[in-house]
This record gives sequence, C-alpha cells and structure tokens, in this order.
Amino acid sequence: MHMYDVILKKRNGATLSREEIEYFVHGYTAGKIPDYQVSALLMAIYFKGMNERETADLTMAIVNSGDKIDLSPIPGTKVDKHSTGGVGDKTTLVLAPLVAAAGVPVAKLSGRGLGHTGGTIDKLESVPGFNVNIDPAGFIAQVRETGIALAAQTGRLCPADKKLYGLRDVTATVDSIPLIASSVTSKKIASGADAIVLDVKCGNGAFMQTREQAVALARAMVDIGKMVRRRMVAVVTDMNQPLGRTVGNALEVREAMETLQGGGPEDLKELCLTLGAHMLVLGDREKDYAIARRRLEQLLASGGAREKFRELVRAQGGDVSVIENPQKLPVASLRHSVPAPVDGYISGMNTMAIGRAAMLLGAGRAAAGDEIDHAAGIVLNKKPGEYVRRGESLAVLHTNREQVLAEVAELVAEAFALAGETPAQRPLILETINEAIG
Amino acid sequence: MHMYDVILKKRNGATLSREEIEYFVHGYTAGKIPDYQVSALLMAIYFKGMNERETADLTMAIVNSGDKIDLSPIPGTKVDKHSTGGVGDKTTLVLAPLVAAAGVPVAKLSGRGLGHTGGTIDKLESVPGFNVNIDPAGFIAQVRETGIALAAQTGRLCPADKKLYGLRDVTATVDSIPLIASSVTSKKIASGADAIVLDVKCGNGAFMQTREQAVALARAMVDIGKMVRRRMVAVVTDMNQPLGRTVGNALEVREAMETLQGGGPEDLKELCLTLGAHMLVLGDREKDYAIARRRLEQLLASGGAREKFRELVRAQGGDVSVIENPQKLPVASLRHSVPAPVDGYISGMNTMAIGRAAMLLGAGRAAAGDEIDHAAGIVLNKKPGEYVRRGESLAVLHTNREQVLAEVAELVAEAFALAGETPAQRPLILETINEAIG
Repeated sequence: MHMYDVILKKRNGATLSREEIEYFVHGYTAGKIPDYQVSALLMAIYFKGMNERETADLTMAIVNSGDKIDLSPIPGTKVDKHSTGGVGDKTTLVLAPLVAAAGVPVAKLSGRGLGHTGGTIDKLESVPGFNVNIDPAGFIAQVRETGIALAAQTGRLCPADKKLYGLRDVTATVDSIPLIASSVTSKKIASGADAIVLDVKCGNGAFMQTREQAVALARAMVDIGKMVRRRMVAVVTDMNQPLGRTVGNALEVREAMETLQGGGPEDLKELCLTLGAHMLVLGDREKDYAIARRRLEQLLASGGAREKFRELVRAQGGDVSVIENPQKLPVASLRHSVPAPVDGYISGMNTMAIGRAAMLLGAGRAAAGDEIDHAAGIVLNKKPGEYVRRGESLAVLHTNREQVLAEVAELVAEAFALAGETPAQRPLILETINEAIG
Repeated sequence: MHMYDVILKKRNGATLSREEIEYFVHGYTAGKIPDYQVSALLMAIYFKGMNERETADLTMAIVNSGDKIDLSPIPGTKVDKHSTGGVGDKTTLVLAPLVAAAGVPVAKLSGRGLGHTGGTIDKLESVPGFNVNIDPAGFIAQVRETGIALAAQTGRLCPADKKLYGLRDVTATVDSIPLIASSVTSKKIASGADAIVLDVKCGNGAFMQTREQAVALARAMVDIGKMVRRRMVAVVTDMNQPLGRTVGNALEVREAMETLQGGGPEDLKELCLTLGAHMLVLGDREKDYAIARRRLEQLLASGGAREKFRELVRAQGGDVSVIENPQKLPVASLRHSVPAPVDGYISGMNTMAIGRAAMLLGAGRAAAGDEIDHAAGIVLNKKPGEYVRRGESLAVLHTNREQVLAEVAELVAEAFALAGETPAQRPLILETINEAIG
C-alpha cells in the first residue's frame, strides 16, 4: 500500500477501505508516513468527506493507536459525557456527582487543555488539597468504593489523535465533521466508556456556530456509536451566552456546588438534568427519560448529589469544608465592576469575547504550560433577556492582574448588546439525537 | 502574514493576493514554511483553483525564486518552445536549427529529466563529442556567432518549482491546471525567453488525456503570457501515437537529421513547420504564419536547416560526419523484431506502453541519475491506419539488455490494436490558442 494512492483515491472522491485508513493512521503515528502527505489527505477529506463506515474506521484506528483503559473491574455500564466546549461550562462538576448518586459509575479522565478557563481537572484543583493524579489501580478502586473518580489523563491514549489534531490545527483542516467526530469519540472509547452522552454546543461561544453544523456533527458521532456498538445520545445545546453566571475555575466550582445543593442558575440545572437523565437511561439505571429526570431532581433537592460530591472531594484528598464554606476557595485580590453604559434589555452577548476576557484575567491558558489563576474569572450579573439601568453592574471581573483590568473591562462591556425591547428567548436544548442500536 | 491564513483563505475559495502568493513561494523555498502546510495549500488549490491573476503571480514568484538568464546581449526576439512531453518527441532537434536558419536566435537550455527517453540534452549526447555543458558567457557568444546553442541547464533556475514539484509528486497534487501552467511557463521565463510557443500534447501518450484538459492547460498558459507580457502561442497536438517512427535517443537523432534534409516522417515534419512558423511570427522574422511556413519548407528543401544543424554540432564539439554517416551514431548489440499476430489495420496504439517499453530497453531513466543507453529504443514499422500481414514486423526493438527482450516484446505487441477496417484519421494539430497582447 502507498500513501500516494490513498491521497489520490480520497482526492478523487472515492471511499477509503478500513485497511487504507488503518495504514495511514498507524503509519503516521509510527512516523513512517510524513506529515506533508497526511496534511494533503486531511485537506482532501475536508473537501470530499467520509461516509459513516470510513468515519467509524478512522475512530477505531485512532483508538487502537495507543493504550485503552479497561474499566471492566467496575461493575455496571460506564457512561461518559463529552462537551464540545463552551464558555462557563461547569456541567461535569455537577453532572458527575449527580449521576453517581443515582448509581451510574463515573470513572472520568480529563485533560487540561487550552481555552477560556481550565478544564474540569483545573477547576477541581481550585478545591484546596484536591488531588487529580491517581494511578490506574487507585482510580478503579475509588470508583468501586465511592462510585466516582475524576482524574487527569495518564498513559498514552489516542496518540494518533494528538498528532492528527496538531497537524490539522496548522493546516486549516480542523473544521471537518468526520475529523472532529472521530477525534472526540475515539478519546471517549479509549477511556473505557460503554456509552456516551454528547453535548454539542452551538452558537457564538462554540466551535459550531450554526445549528446545521452542530446537528451534522452530533449525527456523525451518533453514527459512529452505531457502527462501533457504543450507545450514544447527542444533545445539541445553545451556546449564545455563557452557561450559568460564572466563568473561571473557583467561581465555577462555587456555582456548581450551589447547583448540587438544589440552587444555582436555571440553565446549568436544566442542562445537567437533561444530560444526566440520558446517562441514567444509557447506564441502565432507569427505563425512561422522564423517570430518570425526576430521580435526579430529587437527588438535587434531597442533598444526595451534594453528599456524593463530598465523597469525591474526600476520596481525592480535598478540603470538604469548602462545601459549607465556599469562601475558602481561592479569592482574587481585585474585583472590578463593569457598568452598563445605557438603560436597556440585554439582547445578546458576544460569548467568545467573555471567554477571552476570562483568559486574559488569568482563568485560562493561552499556551500549553501556562499557569492558571484559579481565583480569576467573571461573574455575570446580567444575562440575555434581563433589564439593566445605566451604571448598574453588568459583570464583576475577578483578577490578580491589575495591568489588564482596563482592557478587559472594555472587552466585557462591548460583549453585551443592549436593546429597547426584550429579545426572543432561545431554548437551551435545541435537538436530541438518539439512534437505537439494532 | 501567517501560512495558516493563506491555506484557510484558499480552502474557503477566496482569491489569494500577490503578497500571499509571494509569501508562501519564497517562504517555502527558504525553508521557513514547512512542507505540511504547503501540501495542504496545494490540495486546496487542486480543489478551488486559481484565477488568471493568481496563476500569473504564482508564475512570477517562482521565476523570482532563483537565477534568471539574461539573454539581452543577443540581438532580436528570443523565442523558446516547450512541449508538455510525449513519446518519440524529437521536435526540438529539428525545430531549433530550422528556425535558427530562418534568423530566430535559439538560446535553449534543457534539463535531462525522467521518462521514456532522455531529454533533448541526452539525445544530443548521442552525437559523438557533442558537449552540452557550456558556461553562460560561451553560451551567449555561441548564439551571437552561430544563432544557435543547446545546453544543459546550469545555475539555480526556479528552485521553488523544483521544491513544489517534488511535493506535488508525492501528495497527488500534480494534475492541477494552474500548478502545471505556472510550473511550465516559469522555467521558460527564467530562461530568458521573450516569447514562447507551447506544444500541449493530448492523448493516451500524454499527461493530458483529453482534449478539454489540454485546451484548458493551453489557455491557462497563454493567459499567463498575457498577464506577464510574454507573447505566447499554444498548439494542442495529438499524442495518441508516438511522433515519427522512432523512440530512443540515437534513433531519434537519426530521424531528426532525415527531417532536416527534407525527408523524415510526415507528422514530425508537419509539427515542426507549424510550431516553427509560429516562432518566426513571434520572433518578428515574418509577418504572417503562411509566409513563415513556406520559408521553413524552403529551408528544409534547400539544405539550409541541415547546414544550421551542422554549425550547431561543430560549435559544440560534435562529430559533424554523423550527418552524412548516421551509422556512426551508437548502435545496439541486439535487434529484435515484433511480428503482427494477425492481419489487419493498426486501429490504435497504447502510446504510454511504447514509451515504457523504450525505457525498459535502456532509452530512458526510471530514477534520477540512472544511466541512459543512447543506442536503445524502438523503431515503429507500422503506425495507426497502416495495414499489416500476420508475421510482418510491427516494430524493431534496439537494446543491449537481453534479459528484458521477451517482456518488452510482449508489451510492444500488446500496444498495437488491430482491426478489420482502417480507422478514422485523427488530425495532428487540434487547436491553436493565440491571444494578442493588448
């Protein structure tokens, strides 16, 4: 087999065989196929696409390029959740203890990554003493004992994805549905998930800007699940405003803890109940979505979810007193209120700008290896649909970086659109894609 | 400027600016832009194309990537000729002395290259003593004195083309009209041509298989000429059979010498008169194509063309006695006749197979640096439209490689299609594209 022929075949619009896909994925991972041939193939895939079978074969070739986590010592169906990423997305912090409280074993590995804030792992490190580095045996043991563990990814999972993503990132071939779908699902499958709930974000704070793109991606991933026999449900959700009212690591942990105690913002709660109910059904804990949802509502109201969070924090060495005393979380030295320039309704938000502002305040990494300031971030006092008077606070910036305050305040002020009338409300949950496996 | 943005722009179907094209060509040549980004861009160009202006800018960026030959010390309009390559194409050997005899200065640099036979330079080296390595000063002086010089390319002409072509060759991005057109014309412009006649071959022995493709390429090149103010004429010619009756270096020199003396095969003669007449008009030696053509016919009949060839051979140290004694050219130790299996008319030829057979006999290089056997090649006794009886010779193989004879004989026999009726004759000259520069 020759890489030239594989490129030519895809360039001419033909369908690649499983052997051809495995050949290029494994050859590239092993350093036997040069990156200039792979980037040409990726661009041909960008233009010519991949069908369901090709996308599934690509996914499994990526899975098989590295280590696979074996979660079989944990009884029950292991259900993972993945979000394509948005601003203020602290869903996992709520969802993981919530579904664990309902009996779904949560054995979740996360990366740190770049972005507006840290990843789930970084957010959890806001809790004093919380240890995200657990060895594989300890990880499994913790899930068996408490039903939940959230740890930093170790080992060599999907090295092909890492290499392919790095190449796509510099060759303008990131935004190809089959390439995104295989990248996302391969990591979850390699992490040992039996079933996966996918949260595909859509809007001006998400990678997928339009509903059509988001639905196409959701469908591609569910199709992969069908082909590789992992049960998947994808929920397309709105990301035209940050989720909840906080963006930043410790600030998001605080909001997540409020939600786990039955409070918290409505949108975050709604998303967690929706995703969680699908997880309970996929995890064979409940027969039916509506019953599953009611069960989760009870667990939020009864304190059951909060107790599971306490078990998680204790098991991983964190200071459980933060749950009753959230002021023990890291606090920034500076707080700066951003006032509304005029009276009006918030008619929209530049969500990406809010994310960027949080990063500039110290909440996220611009480059791998950058330090995260857990205390930094933004609290949104106003969100779309709400009324504000001139001079009233739109948002409060939390930071230890005095030098960026003026610039970020302007960025945040400009991120709010104001209008004389209340805007039409957008639904949070746009679409649910759920294909039964035959 | 970032290469990522250039790739993204072309991928999205936009038009690149001159600055962007110069940026990637010069950055790549200098080793500052990695090949994996360039191959992604080349694939995007394959799918999205380039307009006339982009193609012309690419051409000039390639020209400006290296040395340029200055032919200004030679008086008159320097007209070059380029063929996109075919089997048995010995046109330059006839055309160069022919138009030089008519007063067009010929200062032609050629490469060696790969293929069925060697290049013009290799063919000329069949003549004992012929020296193709002339220094630039001597080259110019020879053209000033004799009106003609044919030498091997020296210096660093179009290094960007060399690098880009190497990358295209392994990433399935060769067959893109703007990329081919810029590659061909850049080399001629860097070689100092004021005007260029292009012979675009078309058919089963050519890179362009269909007339549509060949016309599109011809038009793209003439368009470049218009943009960069070099007068160009493109002639699309049939290559569904080898040109003339010989394929192989010394065999082709012999056939070319016959043509220069007023004999030779009709197709070769016709092509040389056509291309040559355009060269005389572009070179301001004749006002009009028909007059120019008559002048060239006279030069073939009168011996004027042959005398110019003699001057060329003498000036470059070759043995002029080969002109009267062609048996002094290299001769192969083995000759093997390929008989017709049945009676019939030759209804078609697999031209590429004839080319490949010649290479296997030793006439061409499979890899750069391979030795050429000047004596090796094929003489075609039958060509399309001619009648053959069973057992009569279709072709004679000339080689010093006994071990390949049986395989090549079979290849050549299979390259002839035989039918009960005489096939429709194809015209040699299919189209002429000639845009006046405004």
